[in-house]
Amino acid sequence: MQLSVKLKNAHYPIIIQPGILGDALRLPSFIKGSQVLIVSNETIAPLYLHYLTSTLSDFEVRIVTLPDGEQHKNQHSLNLIYDELISNKFNRDATLIALGGGVIGDVCGFAAATYQRGVHFIQVPTTLLAQVDASVGGKTAINHPMGKNLIGSFYQPDAVIIDTNSLLTLTSRELSAGMAEIIKYAFISDKQTYDFIEKFIDENGLNQPEKLSSLIYRCCEVKARFVVEDEKEQGIRAILNFGHTYAHALELVTGYTHLLHGEAVAIGMYCAIHLSVQLNLCHAVHLTSLQKMLRMCGLTYTIPKGLDVNKIMEAMLLDKKILNNKLRLVLLKQPGQCFISDEISVEVVKKHLLTLMNREDL
Amino acid sequence: MQLSVKLKNAHYPIIIQPGILGDALRLPSFIKGSQVLIVSNETIAPLYLHYLTSTLSDFEVRIVTLPDGEQHKNQHSLNLIYDELISNKFNRDATLIALGGGVIGDVCGFAAATYQRGVHFIQVPTTLLAQVDASVGGKTAINHPMGKNLIGSFYQPDAVIIDTNSLLTLTSRELSAGMAEIIKYAFISDKQTYDFIEKFIDENGLNQPEKLSSLIYRCCEVKARFVVEDEKEQGIRAILNFGHTYAHALELVTGYTHLLHGEAVAIGMYCAIHLSVQLNLCHAVHLTSLQKMLRMCGLTYTIPKGLDVNKIMEAMLLDKKILNNKLRLVLLKQPGQCFISDEISVEVVKKHLLTLMNREDL
Repeated sequence: MQLSVKLKNAHYPIIIQPGILGDALRLPSFIKGSQVLIVSNETIAPLYLHYLTSTLSDFEVRIVTLPDGEQHKNQHSLNLIYDELISNKFNRDATLIALGGGVIGDVCGFAAATYQRGVHFIQVPTTLLAQVDASVGGKTAINHPMGKNLIGSFYQPDAVIIDTNSLLTLTSRELSAGMAEIIKYAFISDKQTYDFIEKFIDENGLNQPEKLSSLIYRCCEVKARFVVEDEKEQGIRAILNFGHTYAHALELVTGYTHLLHGEAVAIGMYCAIHLSVQLNLCHAVHLTSLQKMLRMCGLTYTIPKGLDVNKIMEAMLLDKKILNNKLRLVLLKQPGQCFISDEISVEVVKKHLLTLMNREDL
Repeated sequence: MQLSVKLKNAHYPIIIQPGILGDALRLPSFIKGSQVLIVSNETIAPLYLHYLTSTLSDFEVRIVTLPDGEQHKNQHSLNLIYDELISNKFNRDATLIALGGGVIGDVCGFAAATYQRGVHFIQVPTTLLAQVDASVGGKTAINHPMGKNLIGSFYQPDAVIIDTNSLLTLTSRELSAGMAEIIKYAFISDKQTYDFIEKFIDENGLNQPEKLSSLIYRCCEVKARFVVEDEKEQGIRAILNFGHTYAHALELVTGYTHLLHGEAVAIGMYCAIHLSVQLNLCHAVHLTSLQKMLRMCGLTYTIPKGLDVNKIMEAMLLDKKILNNKLRLVLLKQPGQCFISDEISVEVVKKHLLTLMNREDL
């Protein structure tokens, strides 16, 4: 399966195909120069790197293997990539390949965006979350000690190559985390997508590889629609951040080690819909639906115990959607009708968070 | 005087006017949000910062003052800017203003390009070199310990504000360095520009402020022409790097402290034309003309003593114009006819450099 992302200055394919990583005719056809740097991590490299390198014998291939985890999406990892590029005299027609999940895609993409003011870049996402979300749309970033994704750029890949076979080795925890972003698409797009995703979950689609491919295709399609309409997130694209203002804050205050990104998004969406219900913007039935979907995917939606609400609020106020010092939250009216509000005061958000944090009955 | 740079995704003015820095109606009109960070250095800030801040009383203004010098165009300075932005909760509609020379413009521009994936940016170049070259065209970068400008991005400013009064406090050494890039325009553009610049130098225009404005205007016009044709330097824009492959290597091997960028460009152009003459590509009369212009502007064109030719070559091979491991030099046929060649072998370039380095008669 293949779809195209057509932007003003970039046009690239997303190819979804089991076994594509070992196909010598596909991925290499997107490489323009002779130098290739693959960035991967310690978990993914032993599983999939050899498939990729077996197709690249015609190129000068270098490899950077980072430690696994969101806490490594930082300046240090970025410098390891720069050092490898520079010490091997990689030049402007070099291609960087991100082989891994969202962390690898983000840091490798940012290196590609900034090395010599931009080199070629191919995304090979191996986690469900990266396949349906992070690898599409050109957002690249590293975290700063004070906030998530604060340093980065918009930089589109030359291609996104999705080998659904790579999902076979994912832990169930990682599959669940990916499902959180998929459930997000159910709430932010349209009725057909909602029904499709609900049915997928009801039918336990995670265990049926052939269903996964079409799910990934549909999610990429939704994501691409938002990106094409608003590449630099000056408006509608911010809807894709549904649940993410909460999620990024929770990831930060737990040191990026406690929650997977998708797990934080699950909690964040719960917070956002719960607040929408409290503000009478949305019917409580949608909160129940969200809870049911999350539970069926093995996801929890309670805020971890022992966190300081002030620290969470402080982190939320560093969110990139903030404008003129106003918190901008993506809220829900009903599935398919999300909107961005900057009218909810910090006090209201904090009080609401406190209510959630003190509840034991979730 | 004002000209426009019209690119596919950006359109911005270059305004050249004595005293514009203190004009409360001009620069502030380009600021979109309420938060402003000015990045300057220890030499420039005491001279001009108060003009700028006096016009910004309606904004939340923060200031980062970096040490002066190319050796500070690095990750550390970049982090100082990020830290100031983050600790003051600057958001996506913030504006960064670069008040200084090329170093300040490059590092501040790269911070603007990458903070929260891109915020607003205004160039206020205060050196002749930055006014005629560095501030126009959207190149931003920091140096890496192993090479100049290796980390950066293309990121266009919202406006370039040139106050020619700021040239009054420049040292003659800095004015000379600026003249090097101006002489570059004489050789890479067209006969009218060549004649204009030659006449300016003959008439000692540096001492006549009214002549300087129209010189700056003409140089910005030439630069903008190249940039509009090839924003991302995939072809013709590389001509603007005439002399720069040599220059960047000389700056690197002298630790960024010995030569001003313009001084290195003067030597680099001499090397490039000298090589062009040696290769019978160009008549020796043009080398003589270059030497005369450089001398009249107080510039030397000898390679500093005591350098290691192998280190220079190594640095040249990291140049961003390298493709497929081939040195790509900008060579001269005659003024107005520069071209990019990747056909000169590393050995020939090295041998030629050695000849120049051993000559005592320059």
